[in-house]
Amino acid sequence: MSKTNRGNFFEDFAVGQVIRHATPRTITVGDVSLYSALYGTRFAVQSADSFAQDIGYPRAPVDDLLVFHVVFGKTVPDISLNAVANLGYAGGRFLAPVYPGDTLTAVSEVIGLRENSNGQSGVVYVRSTGFNQDGVEVLDYVRWVMVRKADTSLPAPDPVIPTLPAALAPDTLGGAVPILDTDAWRTDLSGSSARFADYQVGERIDHVDGMTVEEAEHMIATRLYQNTAKVHFNQFTEGQGRFGRRLIYGGHVISIARALSFNGLANAFHVAAINGGRHVAPLFAGLTVHAFSEVLDAQELPGREDVGALRLRTVATKDRPTADFPYKSGDDYDPSVILDLDYWALIPR
Amino acid sequence: MSKTNRGNFFEDFAVGQVIRHATPRTITVGDVSLYSALYGTRFAVQSADSFAQDIGYPRAPVDDLLVFHVVFGKTVPDISLNAVANLGYAGGRFLAPVYPGDTLTAVSEVIGLRENSNGQSGVVYVRSTGFNQDGVEVLDYVRWVMVRKADTSLPAPDPVIPTLPAALAPDTLGGAVPILDTDAWRTDLSGSSARFADYQVGERIDHVDGMTVEEAEHMIATRLYQNTAKVHFNQFTEGQGRFGRRLIYGGHVISIARALSFNGLANAFHVAAINGGRHVAPLFAGLTVHAFSEVLDAQELPGREDVGALRLRTVATKDRPTADFPYKSGDDYDPSVILDLDYWALIPR
Amino acid sequence: MSKTNRGNFFEDFAVGQVIRHATPRTITVGDVSLYSALYGTRFAVQSADSFAQDIGYPRAPVDDLLVFHVVFGKTVPDISLNAVANLGYAGGRFLAPVYPGDTLTAVSEVIGLRENSNGQSGVVYVRSTGFNQDGVEVLDYVRWVMVRKADTSLPAPDPVIPTLPAALAPDTLGGAVPILDTDAWRTDLSGSSARFADYQVGERIDHVDGMTVEEAEHMIATRLYQNTAKVHFNQFTEGQGRFGRRLIYGGHVISIARALSFNGLANAFHVAAINGGRHVAPLFAGLTVHAFSEVLDAQELPGREDVGALRLRTVATKDRPTADFPYKSGDDYDPSVILDLDYWALIPR
Repeated sequence: MSKTNRGNFFEDFAVGQVIRHATPRTITVGDVSLYSALYGTRFAVQSADSFAQDIGYPRAPVDDLLVFHVVFGKTVPDISLNAVANLGYAGGRFLAPVYPGDTLTAVSEVIGLRENSNGQSGVVYVRSTGFNQDGVEVLDYVRWVMVRKADTSLPAPDPVIPTLPAALAPDTLGGAVPILDTDAWRTDLSGSSARFADYQVGERIDHVDGMTVEEAEHMIATRLYQNTAKVHFNQFTEGQGRFGRRLIYGGHVISIARALSFNGLANAFHVAAINGGRHVAPLFAGLTVHAFSEVLDAQELPGREDVGALRLRTVATKDRPTADFPYKSGDDYDPSVILDLDYWALIPR
Repeated sequence: MSKTNRGNFFEDFAVGQVIRHATPRTITVGDVSLYSALYGTRFAVQSADSFAQDIGYPRAPVDDLLVFHVVFGKTVPDISLNAVANLGYAGGRFLAPVYPGDTLTAVSEVIGLRENSNGQSGVVYVRSTGFNQDGVEVLDYVRWVMVRKADTSLPAPDPVIPTLPAALAPDTLGGAVPILDTDAWRTDLSGSSARFADYQVGERIDHVDGMTVEEAEHMIATRLYQNTAKVHFNQFTEGQGRFGRRLIYGGHVISIARALSFNGLANAFHVAAINGGRHVAPLFAGLTVHAFSEVLDAQELPGREDVGALRLRTVATKDRPTADFPYKSGDDYDPSVILDLDYWALIPR
Repeated sequence: MSKTNRGNFFEDFAVGQVIRHATPRTITVGDVSLYSALYGTRFAVQSADSFAQDIGYPRAPVDDLLVFHVVFGKTVPDISLNAVANLGYAGGRFLAPVYPGDTLTAVSEVIGLRENSNGQSGVVYVRSTGFNQDGVEVLDYVRWVMVRKADTSLPAPDPVIPTLPAALAPDTLGGAVPILDTDAWRTDLSGSSARFADYQVGERIDHVDGMTVEEAEHMIATRLYQNTAKVHFNQFTEGQGRFGRRLIYGGHVISIARALSFNGLANAFHVAAINGGRHVAPLFAGLTVHAFSEVLDAQELPGREDVGALRLRTVATKDRPTADFPYKSGDDYDPSVILDLDYWALIPR
């Protein structure tokens, strides 16, 4: 029996396989403080118990993306330790609120496999689900990663490619948010008077500010999530690799972009779903992240008068301010773009 | 309606104007741990519930300067986003203790305005007040900043320059400290046997130790305070600016100097008031901070037998040990000096 | 009276002397989060309240090494401020569990002294004990350090060299661990199915992963422990010193090695004793730590059916993967080795 985890290779996965991941993790106010200090988030609901309680939460919920990163981190040793690339996300839903003191675990099911034509690697599709200590689902999402084969002589499995939604439907949103008393939502405290009706489909918002990333910061963050992907931590081996340096966890970029988006989306307090996401290019320490958002859609939630949903594309760049909204030329991304994220955010009506 | 906060410019301020700042913030033991880890503070009252309880606190209070930074951070988006320089502080009073779990909000009133003769900018004086979740004032202080005009064609306002105290009076101190049982103050645990009577006016104390600052540290700290001033975070733009690099938040220097001052002032457990403060020169990452203090005054507190007040000038330098107390030659500061802080600290009698 | 702590010199110590150290410290979930983020630990017992409760703990205990570092940090201002070198550890026992909310204090007794033949310095042996707020001993250990003499004209004391155990006996282990229901130990959640009986004496395990250390990280860690040793923090003086840079606290290396050891020792959840430890060479920021372990012994615990003890040698290196187990050639360590640690870990049977 090998006691060291070598991770799974492409041939180790089978469609329908269910993997319960190690290590359960109790989220505490300590994690919340670190998350705040690493990204500088300012959304009032997550920042202040009093604000959250005034509108109907029992206390300030844990930031949605902190929940995402912790669940994601658990999947790494089993799913992506031998990954060549993290290709995309889809169908991510935040299903129940998480509060300090809750303990998260994660399970993944393999829902698709497709070997690459070179026979060296293949794409693995997994649906990962996060649970709290009561067995309640708090989050699920699909991601697909390209994983190396260890034994390239093995035959390719029958390809199975799951059908993934382009976007979550509005009636699937909001499970993580209690019915809110939005009359009690104080816009002086939240930082903006712009509510649901103030945003127009097609509107683009430059988030203005930029954030430079240091090696210590992204490693502290990624360890906080118990994400063990080697490329983030080991300069000795990465220094000899393709980029010559450590790669920053893509989720770190998502959280930076989300924190920057406060300036323009201060009341869009909750990430309700991740429709799709792509890490277009890697980020390295010393570079500065800027971001802009485009409103792709705006929908009421069936049966809810308190909040509406904005479908947003948030685009992050490196060393490139975003006042002119750099994105794509035809099918090609602007060379500055590092993140293209499509998600639903909830905002008071 | 612009959804992005462009900050206020000089012409946006009017004397008497009251601004309630976003984002309320619940202070937790997570914030306390981060503060401890960022500065290495060792004052026993703030470090240990048991020590605090033995002398009469319900539990360890939150470090005074963490409270200051959180309140200060809230004011930045409204007061100093377009600041050229943070010119000074005065009249700062710590009015009530803050404990983990308390939520802080902040309000500022504009109390003075004076346009500069060049018509490009002006000085804005604000009194900022921090409140807890029960509406109790925990802190107030005056600061004045030089803020750019956006429209230089606008006429100058009538100048109003507030009268500010050179120092707080002893009878205004101590509101944040319950009556203490100083017989229970164990000097072996606090790290020094020197109490109020052991300090002499005019005495100078070199705090000996030095602390080098890294980019990751000051950014983590400044984000913890939700302070959004761009100069601290964006190497891309700052690299093209006056200094070619990120400026360290002045409050970070205050906290380093205060932590260093433990070595010599171990029992001076509480910052009761900030009489005045000046960031004499900027600090950049990679430089090392040293500090010394001079006892400017020593006063009993009317009606209190438990603690006395030391008025201290703490001077911090960069890359310059302070054994010979570098300060001023005539009106000019020694080129190593970065901070000149005048405050009252309480210490057991 | 000097108000500044100059630390003790060799001639200030006497065998039998007892020193109660400043500053008591309440350990919180904030400290636990920071510890997790600094090292990326993944042992399930310390990570999740639910996992800990399922097997019989009241909640997740604080990581043993966090307890060690906090107790160690308290001893620095009195024991090793004028140390030339930290020579070794022995006889370290973890005696009672520590939970968030507990407050730690520390006391040291001088148990040995031996002046060096050059008359410039000497070795001081101390037994340091950590207590919780109820006066319960949570940890004790012996360390010996080489400390400078301030007055080299003073005569040498009679040498006293304590007898130290090569290893703790199995019947002294386990005091910090309640009787566990190891049927409830879920190996899917803990990350490995390997239990006590699966490890063989003589077996060596490469922990595969590497971790690069940044200046900000080791300073944040060392300040979290309120360890004030100057060599870790002051680039201005260290830049002029022997190495030209800051030295990383040896305990930081121990915690990195322990975190890396999860990959191969995932169920060895508790450090029960430190038989001996040596910081073979210094570590500096920018270097990458790898580690391997060798099973030196495996013992049942008298009267306990739940857990067994593995005696482990964990060796850490800098910028050198450990797949071929670099250790010693004769009496000489491989030049890559920085840590040689001999300890007992408990693991479910």
